[in-house]
Amino acid sequence: MELQDIYLHLRRDIEKIEQELTHSIHTEQTTLQHAAHHLLKAGGKRMRPVFVLLSGRFGTYHLENISHVAVALELIHMASLVHDDVIDNARTRRGKETVKAKWSNQTAMYTGDFIFARALQKIAQIKDSDVQAILSNAMMKMCEGEIEQIEDIFAPDQSLKRYLRRIKRKTALLMSVSCQLGAIVSGARDRDVKALAKYGYYVGMAFQLTDDVLDLTGDEKVLGKPAGSDLRQGNITLPVTYALHHATEQDQTKILTYIQSKGTQGALNEVLDIVRTAGGIEETLQLSTRYLKKALHALALLPDSLERQSLQLIGEFIVRRSY
Amino acid sequence: MELQDIYLHLRRDIEKIEQELTHSIHTEQTTLQHAAHHLLKAGGKRMRPVFVLLSGRFGTYHLENISHVAVALELIHMASLVHDDVIDNARTRRGKETVKAKWSNQTAMYTGDFIFARALQKIAQIKDSDVQAILSNAMMKMCEGEIEQIEDIFAPDQSLKRYLRRIKRKTALLMSVSCQLGAIVSGARDRDVKALAKYGYYVGMAFQLTDDVLDLTGDEKVLGKPAGSDLRQGNITLPVTYALHHATEQDQTKILTYIQSKGTQGALNEVLDIVRTAGGIEETLQLSTRYLKKALHALALLPDSLERQSLQLIGEFIVRRSY
Repeated sequence: MELQDIYLHLRRDIEKIEQELTHSIHTEQTTLQHAAHHLLKAGGKRMRPVFVLLSGRFGTYHLENISHVAVALELIHMASLVHDDVIDNARTRRGKETVKAKWSNQTAMYTGDFIFARALQKIAQIKDSDVQAILSNAMMKMCEGEIEQIEDIFAPDQSLKRYLRRIKRKTALLMSVSCQLGAIVSGARDRDVKALAKYGYYVGMAFQLTDDVLDLTGDEKVLGKPAGSDLRQGNITLPVTYALHHATEQDQTKILTYIQSKGTQGALNEVLDIVRTAGGIEETLQLSTRYLKKALHALALLPDSLERQSLQLIGEFIVRRSY
Repeated sequence: MELQDIYLHLRRDIEKIEQELTHSIHTEQTTLQHAAHHLLKAGGKRMRPVFVLLSGRFGTYHLENISHVAVALELIHMASLVHDDVIDNARTRRGKETVKAKWSNQTAMYTGDFIFARALQKIAQIKDSDVQAILSNAMMKMCEGEIEQIEDIFAPDQSLKRYLRRIKRKTALLMSVSCQLGAIVSGARDRDVKALAKYGYYVGMAFQLTDDVLDLTGDEKVLGKPAGSDLRQGNITLPVTYALHHATEQDQTKILTYIQSKGTQGALNEVLDIVRTAGGIEETLQLSTRYLKKALHALALLPDSLERQSLQLIGEFIVRRSY
């Protein structure tokens, strides 16, 4: 089953979101029009809009109201990806060149700024100061997460706590907010809003953990970027930290040397092989599954419905896709 | 008379704004702490906060309420400067290295993102959706202005209309919003809010026009950057466009060649001399004075007060400083 099959009944609304997305970043400026649409056209699962729509079903669902939130969230996500690729010096994303690779860091900077400005315009159309506060708080925390990721580049001594906080800010927060806002804007009951926000947070954590695994184990064609990109860019994830403490002493040294030399000493492929077999993959997937369980517990607090089932299937898909 | 003398009676409140500014960009991350404070410590006239405070006096003035707006506006301004310097490839600002020059484009990008995120946090503390809408609309238009400036780099065929729109978005808008929001947040009468917004817009236009003149005529020590920086970076301002139409044919060709070759053919100093003597400086200053007059007309709609007098003096100072 593909992810899109899970929410087939929302297909028409998702198409409208897609149209609104394309429209929202239209500009007469040539470079900007191409750069901004470059990422949009590369596709994407549009998970955040999907979460908004599904959560919106727990209240009084009007596409018109929640579409602005859905589009704003996807724009924030896209803008952060464009800037992240500058920070990570990433060449490819979703099987295509990144904006920074195809154009320049400079262009990527203002393209991200532009998409972000359009997100703000969308948010302003929402006219609900609580919604705006939640969104701006999320943006601020994501930015802080981005900065922490920068600080932690090629830093080998990372606690689990710090790693989890980073992925919370990087991924889980916006997914939580997607669920939360879809429910709030459609007037869902407060306890349902809270349950959905929790679900979004736990599923977001599970999502990023499996993403970090897939980066090491996945196929380049599927990933849309070379395997081992995280380590190459100095983003030290849980499987790597685990290997640093559980591999043989000789292998630990090889990993440490690679990291401390910022990838200039040692062979990435050899280090990746060590990491893949040191047990960290399994540890990380187990942690991901524990987060998924928490997500499903949160879901169980909600009234049963097609949407609740969709959210459950999405959560399970997220963890299952890593096999 | 210095600018600060005009609002001496607000000195204590401005010091509090300064403290809140410093506090608002505090972070444990080392590079970011240094980069973000680098621009703050380079100083600045803090005109936007001053406008907020002065306009706040036309309603019921509580520093606590309007300080968030003042700080948010200055943060937005600072973030835009950091990103502008990336786009302009600028090496110096306010007599110091720019963030991009001292660190890198990458660092400048996320430093601007960080300051901007903190601005958003400040705005979220304001809890007034109208205020938030006004601010996000201004941010969006500034971003569009930034993009248009990029499109117009080394473009010789610029209409006056396009130029004025660019400086409206780049400068006048945020100054107008500063005046407008200071008044709104302190509950000033609607007609006073409108008059102050108009004043801010016209003074902002006058300000940027004189800035564009000073870039050509000013002393490097005073400017904090080399004279002729705009032209060097490809930012074609009104005095240059004027010279392109009014200098001798031979001199017009020299300017055009410089611009079309993006500064690789022809000597900048020679082109600057042509521009300085072609009559465009006077034209631009006259236009600046016309905007100032409109600003003063808007002020005349307000009840007389120490603050109204301060705003008048500020407006006159802005145009006078170009001599």
